[in-house]
Amino acid sequence: MLGEPDQRSRGASPASDALLFCTLVALRIDLNADVGEGSSDDAGLLRLVTSANVAAGFHAGDPSVLRQTIRAARAGAAAVGAHPSFPDRAGFGRHEMIVTPQEAEDFVLYQIAAVAGVAAAEGVKLQHVKPHGALYNMAARDAALAEAIARAASAFDSSLILFGLPGSELLKAGRAAGLRVAAEAFADRAYEADGSLVFRKTPGAVIHDADAVVARAIRMAKDRSVTAVDGSIVRIDLDTICVHSDTPGAADLAARLRAGLEAAGVTVRAIGTL
Amino acid sequence: MLGEPDQRSRGASPASDALLFCTLVALRIDLNADVGEGSSDDAGLLRLVTSANVAAGFHAGDPSVLRQTIRAARAGAAAVGAHPSFPDRAGFGRHEMIVTPQEAEDFVLYQIAAVAGVAAAEGVKLQHVKPHGALYNMAARDAALAEAIARAASAFDSSLILFGLPGSELLKAGRAAGLRVAAEAFADRAYEADGSLVFRKTPGAVIHDADAVVARAIRMAKDRSVTAVDGSIVRIDLDTICVHSDTPGAADLAARLRAGLEAAGVTVRAIGTL
Amino acid sequence: MLGEPDQRSRGASPASDALLFCTLVALRIDLNADVGEGSSDDAGLLRLVTSANVAAGFHAGDPSVLRQTIRAARAGAAAVGAHPSFPDRAGFGRHEMIVTPQEAEDFVLYQIAAVAGVAAAEGVKLQHVKPHGALYNMAARDAALAEAIARAASAFDSSLILFGLPGSELLKAGRAAGLRVAAEAFADRAYEADGSLVFRKTPGAVIHDADAVVARAIRMAKDRSVTAVDGSIVRIDLDTICVHSDTPGAADLAARLRAGLEAAGVTVRAIGTL
Amino acid sequence: MLGEPDQRSRGASPASDALLFCTLVALRIDLNADVGEGSSDDAGLLRLVTSANVAAGFHAGDPSVLRQTIRAARAGAAAVGAHPSFPDRAGFGRHEMIVTPQEAEDFVLYQIAAVAGVAAAEGVKLQHVKPHGALYNMAARDAALAEAIARAASAFDSSLILFGLPGSELLKAGRAAGLRVAAEAFADRAYEADGSLVFRKTPGAVIHDADAVVARAIRMAKDRSVTAVDGSIVRIDLDTICVHSDTPGAADLAARLRAGLEAAGVTVRAIGTL
Repeated sequence: MLGEPDQRSRGASPASDALLFCTLVALRIDLNADVGEGSSDDAGLLRLVTSANVAAGFHAGDPSVLRQTIRAARAGAAAVGAHPSFPDRAGFGRHEMIVTPQEAEDFVLYQIAAVAGVAAAEGVKLQHVKPHGALYNMAARDAALAEAIARAASAFDSSLILFGLPGSELLKAGRAAGLRVAAEAFADRAYEADGSLVFRKTPGAVIHDADAVVARAIRMAKDRSVTAVDGSIVRIDLDTICVHSDTPGAADLAARLRAGLEAAGVTVRAIGTL
Repeated sequence: MLGEPDQRSRGASPASDALLFCTLVALRIDLNADVGEGSSDDAGLLRLVTSANVAAGFHAGDPSVLRQTIRAARAGAAAVGAHPSFPDRAGFGRHEMIVTPQEAEDFVLYQIAAVAGVAAAEGVKLQHVKPHGALYNMAARDAALAEAIARAASAFDSSLILFGLPGSELLKAGRAAGLRVAAEAFADRAYEADGSLVFRKTPGAVIHDADAVVARAIRMAKDRSVTAVDGSIVRIDLDTICVHSDTPGAADLAARLRAGLEAAGVTVRAIGTL
Repeated sequence: MLGEPDQRSRGASPASDALLFCTLVALRIDLNADVGEGSSDDAGLLRLVTSANVAAGFHAGDPSVLRQTIRAARAGAAAVGAHPSFPDRAGFGRHEMIVTPQEAEDFVLYQIAAVAGVAAAEGVKLQHVKPHGALYNMAARDAALAEAIARAASAFDSSLILFGLPGSELLKAGRAAGLRVAAEAFADRAYEADGSLVFRKTPGAVIHDADAVVARAIRMAKDRSVTAVDGSIVRIDLDTICVHSDTPGAADLAARLRAGLEAAGVTVRAIGTL
Repeated sequence: MLGEPDQRSRGASPASDALLFCTLVALRIDLNADVGEGSSDDAGLLRLVTSANVAAGFHAGDPSVLRQTIRAARAGAAAVGAHPSFPDRAGFGRHEMIVTPQEAEDFVLYQIAAVAGVAAAEGVKLQHVKPHGALYNMAARDAALAEAIARAASAFDSSLILFGLPGSELLKAGRAAGLRVAAEAFADRAYEADGSLVFRKTPGAVIHDADAVVARAIRMAKDRSVTAVDGSIVRIDLDTICVHSDTPGAADLAARLRAGLEAAGVTVRAIGTL
């Protein structure tokens, strides 16, 4: 039955109202992508994804790239979010850095404010915040860092939506700070049976077959589940699916993802409108 | 008898009303300093100046220094402004760069927004914008660059006050963009007979004698005039006097300046309150 | 006759020896490309070009990218050169900056030394220096800047070859400093009748048709001439042809260029071996 | 009686020859300081210390500051070393970063090569390498990182001397790589009974009394020992004493240290000449 979830909503059992509600919610999904990082696929992606995580200048981008990217997001109807990073331009924000929570709060706030200010000049209100790279990964497991990020977002604008891994310290801290949060899944990444991502350098961790990626995204959106590497079906909490913008053909994959999801009856909409 | 205006305003001549008005305006002045650039005098300065130009991270400072500096400004009762620069950290913002007006608008907007966002988290509203170093100097003479800066400030918050040289393209562009502007004078710099600054590398361009600096500041504040290098008295338009924070003993000089001005009957107040 | 230059060398006139020599020299050419700047075509390019201008970290790249690029150049048999830039990471080195000659000498020397040091650890000796972006363009016309670059290169290693535009101040300064120089031409750029490049933003300034680019490169290599935008044949001095690495399909174009040149009887060899 | 060795060497016991040798060595010491980081004390320090650790541009400094600092070191007769850091300009190299050993090797090599190249243009040969800040501290305990640094130094020039904490992984890795190493002590820091430094944020960790600092330095140089916080006498291995350049009055303290050491019969000489 699992894997054909829409059937469940067509039943006539006494519990059908509640099931119907759950399934309808499940049939909407947000697609997000990191942009403003130099990929030539940005323009294409911004017509297909619904939430754009715009590089804030600390790992990639600069104020003019930021502004052009925000304009392209507006033109493509993608909601705009800030994509703050450790101050690690040379390492593209991929190096873990040991900073105090106060330092993290300060540089995240600085980046959110800068992106929001440029967005405002383009008539765009910031929808969300998704930390980048090592900051995202560390904030999944480090509560103090997660709380610092949540404080920064919340201090700037309590209506911001905080993106993070399902079950992460980051989402926990976001909720505790009164923020709306969005759990993020990756259709092109293999999952362990416990719902965690397979370590990226493990062979098979990244799924390159586009058909498989689309099929996984549809199952994610419809069932909130994924087939783990051991073949088991794992339920995962998710509100948004990430489209990696740094893989060749990212815009093509995004087009197939969106078309596949919509053909499967999933409404693709920005998280802030769901 | 606000601020103890000087004797001239107490006369009873037929023209006294106009004189009284002019003199009252003249007897108030703003003192500003560049801070958050690494000077150990910052804490002292921020108890003495009334407007703090806080480095926005492109020539000096970082998000945590920025926040600490804003806290110190709040504690010292100095109003907070953004001090945006060319992206020239290695050169401390002193290198002229050839950028398009759009690029300038973008990086100035980014910096204003970042400073304003951090200030807001400290409960402080941004009062003003003063470009730094080469950007300030180029914007004095380059109308397109000046307009770009004014557009950035105005787009972010039309109540911001733009600081610049008297007679500069920057002030002209600020006024044209509907911004309030503040003309800046330098009590420790020699002036030419035409009211321009003596080129910094000319011998005698910088006045090191503290008594002379204080005397010049008082004359500036009370008379809106300065004795030029040829001995002539030059009228200059000014709303704020800059205290250089990068000279040894900057806080001591600021203390003497403030005490001297107040003893001479000049009210030292943040420009936004004048 | 022009355009079929190898015919000239087959004559038997009294001057044939000199002509023969000139033509033989003309039939060798260096192909260079900027690498280590993030293009995914680097690996392919480094098997096709003979001189690699490796980003030194001031406009792009970082020490690890630098090292990997040098390894790829060694594997691909491309000679390695330093590609120093203004310190303008945010602007990819494309912003003109006003610096003193001493500053320019210092940051060029720093970058050459860093690249040479990493190259030496890979058993590779630096062949050449090609300034990047705005530094290259400014050094074409600014004698003081050109001399500063030449001083830096010469101080580090007087056997370095300095790349620049034909007729530029940079080549003049290189020769005056006792350096070997290499004049650079662009097969995918339109030329004015005076031998200068058509301004990049003019329509038609960049030639996108690969066949046309290859034909131009062959004529450049065999005749040292190019057809200008007005149809006239312009002689240009050249030792190396640049393959732009930032255009899509750069490696494919390089492959066609190299094959076309070799099929036309032109030997493609690193400048240092010519 | 070179340098007035202390009383213990004047005995006549059968072991006196060996003791005499040890003590003579002990009576020479190197004084080092971090320079090129923006301190106004640099010029003074460079006339007093014997080894200058010059910021390589990744945490502080830039190519021109680097060159001026090397000139000042040469004028002051201080030997020149490279002071490489994590790429953490915003954090002054004080943030621990998680990098691969290969990344560390690459950025250390890059920085050593850059400093050596600028030094060579001033006729100065690099004497040593002292990692900065978080890199120094992490390399004291992380063998893989220490080995990466040692590999970088050794690949560049096997005659370089590597500075590090006594007993650290860094010195161990340096020796294993065939490098000469120098153990560093801090006369202004409190020591634990096991010879480790008291954690910097513990009250009393930094000794501010100049007389006490000088007395400790003399004991360090003459006895290779220090009084720990529990009153015990701890033997420490040391070849060089660090003078912190970032404390107010650093040059004054250096002058007193040098005068005190020399008055006590200790020869202050660059490590490379000892």
